[in-house]
Amino acid sequence: MSADALVIFTPSGKRGRVAIGTPVLQAARSLGVDLDSVCGGRGICSKCQVTPGFGDFPKHGVHVAADALSEWNAVEERYRSKRGMPDGRRLGCQACVMGDVVIDVPPESQVHKQVIRKSATERHIEMDPATRLYYVEVAEPDMHEPSGDFERLSAALAAQWGVEGVTADLAILRRLQGVLRKGAWKATLAVHRGNHDAAPRILDLWPGFHDGGIYGLAVDLGSTTIAAHVCDLKDGRVLASSGLMNPQIRFGEDLMSRVSYAMMNPGGDVEMTRAVREALNALATGIAAEAGIEPGAIYETVFVCNPVMHHLLLGIDPVELGQAPFALAHSGSLSFDAREIGLSNINPAARVYVLPCIAGHVGADCAAVALSEQPDKSEDLVLIVDVGTNAEILLGNREKVLACSSPTGPAFEGAQISSGQRAAPGAIERVEIDPVTKEPRFRIIGVEPWSDEPGFAEGAAKTGISGICGSGIIEVVAEMRMAGIVDASGLIGSPEQVGTPRCEPQGRTFSYLLHDASVGGGPRVTVTQGDIRAIQLAKSALYAGARLLMDEMGVERVDRVTLAGAFGAHISPKHAMVLGMIPDAPLDHVTSAGNAAGTGARIALCNVGARGAIEETVRHIHKVETAIEPRFQEHFVNASAIPNAVDPFPELAKIVTLPDVAFNTGGGEGGGRRRRRG
Amino acid sequence: MSADALVIFTPSGKRGRVAIGTPVLQAARSLGVDLDSVCGGRGICSKCQVTPGFGDFPKHGVHVAADALSEWNAVEERYRSKRGMPDGRRLGCQACVMGDVVIDVPPESQVHKQVIRKSATERHIEMDPATRLYYVEVAEPDMHEPSGDFERLSAALAAQWGVEGVTADLAILRRLQGVLRKGAWKATLAVHRGNHDAAPRILDLWPGFHDGGIYGLAVDLGSTTIAAHVCDLKDGRVLASSGLMNPQIRFGEDLMSRVSYAMMNPGGDVEMTRAVREALNALATGIAAEAGIEPGAIYETVFVCNPVMHHLLLGIDPVELGQAPFALAHSGSLSFDAREIGLSNINPAARVYVLPCIAGHVGADCAAVALSEQPDKSEDLVLIVDVGTNAEILLGNREKVLACSSPTGPAFEGAQISSGQRAAPGAIERVEIDPVTKEPRFRIIGVEPWSDEPGFAEGAAKTGISGICGSGIIEVVAEMRMAGIVDASGLIGSPEQVGTPRCEPQGRTFSYLLHDASVGGGPRVTVTQGDIRAIQLAKSALYAGARLLMDEMGVERVDRVTLAGAFGAHISPKHAMVLGMIPDAPLDHVTSAGNAAGTGARIALCNVGARGAIEETVRHIHKVETAIEPRFQEHFVNASAIPNAVDPFPELAKIVTLPDVAFNTGGGEGGGRRRRRG
Repeated sequence: MSADALVIFTPSGKRGRVAIGTPVLQAARSLGVDLDSVCGGRGICSKCQVTPGFGDFPKHGVHVAADALSEWNAVEERYRSKRGMPDGRRLGCQACVMGDVVIDVPPESQVHKQVIRKSATERHIEMDPATRLYYVEVAEPDMHEPSGDFERLSAALAAQWGVEGVTADLAILRRLQGVLRKGAWKATLAVHRGNHDAAPRILDLWPGFHDGGIYGLAVDLGSTTIAAHVCDLKDGRVLASSGLMNPQIRFGEDLMSRVSYAMMNPGGDVEMTRAVREALNALATGIAAEAGIEPGAIYETVFVCNPVMHHLLLGIDPVELGQAPFALAHSGSLSFDAREIGLSNINPAARVYVLPCIAGHVGADCAAVALSEQPDKSEDLVLIVDVGTNAEILLGNREKVLACSSPTGPAFEGAQISSGQRAAPGAIERVEIDPVTKEPRFRIIGVEPWSDEPGFAEGAAKTGISGICGSGIIEVVAEMRMAGIVDASGLIGSPEQVGTPRCEPQGRTFSYLLHDASVGGGPRVTVTQGDIRAIQLAKSALYAGARLLMDEMGVERVDRVTLAGAFGAHISPKHAMVLGMIPDAPLDHVTSAGNAAGTGARIALCNVGARGAIEETVRHIHKVETAIEPRFQEHFVNASAIPNAVDPFPELAKIVTLPDVAFNTGGGEGGGRRRRRG
Repeated sequence: MSADALVIFTPSGKRGRVAIGTPVLQAARSLGVDLDSVCGGRGICSKCQVTPGFGDFPKHGVHVAADALSEWNAVEERYRSKRGMPDGRRLGCQACVMGDVVIDVPPESQVHKQVIRKSATERHIEMDPATRLYYVEVAEPDMHEPSGDFERLSAALAAQWGVEGVTADLAILRRLQGVLRKGAWKATLAVHRGNHDAAPRILDLWPGFHDGGIYGLAVDLGSTTIAAHVCDLKDGRVLASSGLMNPQIRFGEDLMSRVSYAMMNPGGDVEMTRAVREALNALATGIAAEAGIEPGAIYETVFVCNPVMHHLLLGIDPVELGQAPFALAHSGSLSFDAREIGLSNINPAARVYVLPCIAGHVGADCAAVALSEQPDKSEDLVLIVDVGTNAEILLGNREKVLACSSPTGPAFEGAQISSGQRAAPGAIERVEIDPVTKEPRFRIIGVEPWSDEPGFAEGAAKTGISGICGSGIIEVVAEMRMAGIVDASGLIGSPEQVGTPRCEPQGRTFSYLLHDASVGGGPRVTVTQGDIRAIQLAKSALYAGARLLMDEMGVERVDRVTLAGAFGAHISPKHAMVLGMIPDAPLDHVTSAGNAAGTGARIALCNVGARGAIEETVRHIHKVETAIEPRFQEHFVNASAIPNAVDPFPELAKIVTLPDVAFNTGGGEGGGRRRRRG
């Protein structure tokens, strides 16, 4: 037998020769193979489990003898008997290479494992979180070579994990001596790697080997809604997603009215800051309970938000954002202690990362969308629209990326809609209306069957039917237009004009009854003329922003469109196009990305390298300011009809035929001219 | 005239050729001449004032023509008319070199000016404080090239001052926009340079050019007394020095009794931490008032203290310091926000620096003594003794430095002495006793004449005569020994034995009446047998520590001795030697250094480079642990007599002849054997 042996790792295919007797974990490290270890090779954590292969491997050109690894040892036996281990597995830190061998690293033993989850937003995120656990064995104090417990801990972390120059605040130093002695000079540390050049910092510590959970919170702080995901920082799993209304709505529904509130009321900004921070604490407590974890196990929070929310979260008066030149107090990314913004119920040492803002009207939420959807990596020209109270719009490709923000108002989030609500069980999220009978069918969140299918009643009995969420609102208005209940100008017809008693008089206009639960004590879910008008304003603003970027880019068409929204299920591309929310594009090139800003926040939470990457990307995004651009107003005015009069929707015409109806309420609403289209 | 000219700067003697038309400030910078400027050459701050010389300079070999500098300009005229400027001065940023010239930089225009002050501790400190003011002119926001106000401020600081990568916490960001707009995009910043690799940080900011004061607090936090100096961070001036008793005394007079208190009482450490922090806040308020400054203008605090006080200040349970191996929680230097230790009335952004500890019993106060007295730079072997409740003792030279700490107890600080008090007006600080009449004369703090000189009564009427401070206690006991009032074993004689009614019976022993103010309602200031015993214990501990270091170094004699003490006037070398506090040395090689630990704290406060230097020095100091060293006990027992029986004091014998008396109180105190010596 030669003094070294060939080791081939799968699935990476990495191979090399190592000295006989080398532990598999050490071989993996020397060959750059992604094999996890928390305990540093002491046979405690079992993160380094591998599956050796034996016999002939023609593909690799090796034969693996039965004794290619050292014998099953006592450490492995103890681990298996205590905690169990699948057959065929070995501990990489115990098994030593004795001959040529092929070793498979199962997904759960890979540090940078690819996480795939089914949820509103399915996404692969390469795990490289800023906060990780490290198990260390610390030298005992020696009176004759005096040094602090912290200094010996720091030396251990550097020697055993290559983490140099760690720091700790006084709260950690206060606990250090007790922990080290309780753990007999062994401890597990939660260490946060700082952004940029900041030193790594100990956020928490436990005696001995600790395999407890460390979690992070990714928060999309919108004007109307606050959405959060709690993620396991070890594997990126989303344990719970939750959200609530932004309580600042009581100070003004849109951003500019909140800025006005701050300008008109001394201390108004402080009041709004307090309100949102209280909500965030409530959200953190709630989502931790939902995920079944202690709030104190949350060590990191990533925020994405528009510039006004950014300033109000940080406690900065947003007044400068209300007037040209819309100067941000701070545009770069920010890292600080969670307690600095009053996040008091997560871990007291928890850190916050806020993505960079792009401009005074284009915030960290837009940066998060860019991180999630990567227009700067796209070969073809992509339009990305993140629907919210302020829509974030990105247009670009590898060559150039433009960004703007458009003040759509909160209608798409259900806030100015009579039956609107946030996406929660019982909210109507999908709608279809029969063009002949004008009868609706719908689906509610939390119940699989449609309203006319078996099993629906049972499901709905549990959730109730409470209102319409964002995606449902887009669908129901588009369906009303397709069914001829609403005309091109946006008017709802009378029962006689439409031919259904579901069209009900409401003052001088009409509303459409989507669902009547009043006999069972539930609500009457209707779409009013006011709802239609709010949606028209919102979609016009969205459309105008997208067109402005296209003007700036000098294009009349985009190759593909990505629709995203913070809340609810995915936005239906077809319905969005019927509404005229977005410029014309081949329908099969219009996709829905779920909560892109929230996904961007999750990426930044789970991968510290992504933070540097998006900070760099943001420096190259060209900002377009809608507020001072006369063409924005032009596009806005021209975009109010359904469908939009300036855009003939040739692609859409292949799929839906919009009825040529026009209603006249006698009150001057809309025009009476009939026009055929198709 | 050639295209360049010779410029010679005095007093540095630096010279070089610069292009005609170069401003003097720029010439100074290019030649490495120390010429101050806060406004960066904009003619606002006047820190760059220089005095040009004209005519023949044979020493420098140049003739300076009357037009060697550009003409007096409007900026200089405006400055002189508004604020005044001495005749012959020019502003270095305005006057340009037009021909060969000799330029003097007056002391007040030197950044690194040498500060000399008369006080308890006179010391030259080269100014290079961590916190400095910078005036910047910031680019206005541009909607078309959006960036945050902070980002433009940061760019200005980098471009105009070379300060790269500045950071600011949220409290500063909250104020930034208002300050920049109020100052029309000009601002003055207080920037703190971090230790090691930490990024510079903005601590405060003002609109426009701000020439207000920034101050620092150097604190020597002792077991018995807390002493502080408030220094101007611009020039190092000590504006006020103040002190108070450490309120932790109620939990135990010495360190070990405080550690015991923490061990025996759950939450006892927290209680002691709270007490010392409250005292520090009171001290900061008081000293600021005394200095005539706002407490909010204090931006930095440097602490030196022994390990137990170090832990109690930081809120760390000191229990590990009470038992072998005496492990510190953290031995390195520490930097953190003052609010983290509850210093709430100085500037909210103020930073704290704590010097490194040397070992579990040898603290940051000893490091400060080393920084002040620099044994590691000494050619000859120096013994440095810092007298306090725990004495810090250093012995060494360029080759090697040893350190230990000796538990002297609080007697030298007046805490276990019947008439003891801290050094304050009215405290007896100097004492002489006539060996024939046994009558004392003394001097009190705040009154120049001695008690038997004209003018004393008037002075004492104002201050009162309240007790004896540290240096007075050492003197009075030594004088009592020299006057034959106390024998070699430490016994006070009876009135008959000594021959003075000032020896008064007190129980079974005698006390000596130093001053009787009782007819005027004042105290009777006496020295009791208990006082002598306390001083004997203290001096024995001190002496034993010094001898232990000498054993470790393998020497029988030291070349020189430096005596230091946190409180009161300087310790008298002669009296210290009579008492036997220190090993024998030539009396003219024994000097008094005042408050060396406090001076070390001031140096670290005023010179950020000194922090790195002492951190490095401490790594090379060899620690000797007295608590476990049997020889320490031996030396201690042998050192109790006055003079010390094991040390024949040949040097001292040349100066004083100690009376060969021995008293027997009949109560078993002391021995009766008479012995001649001289």
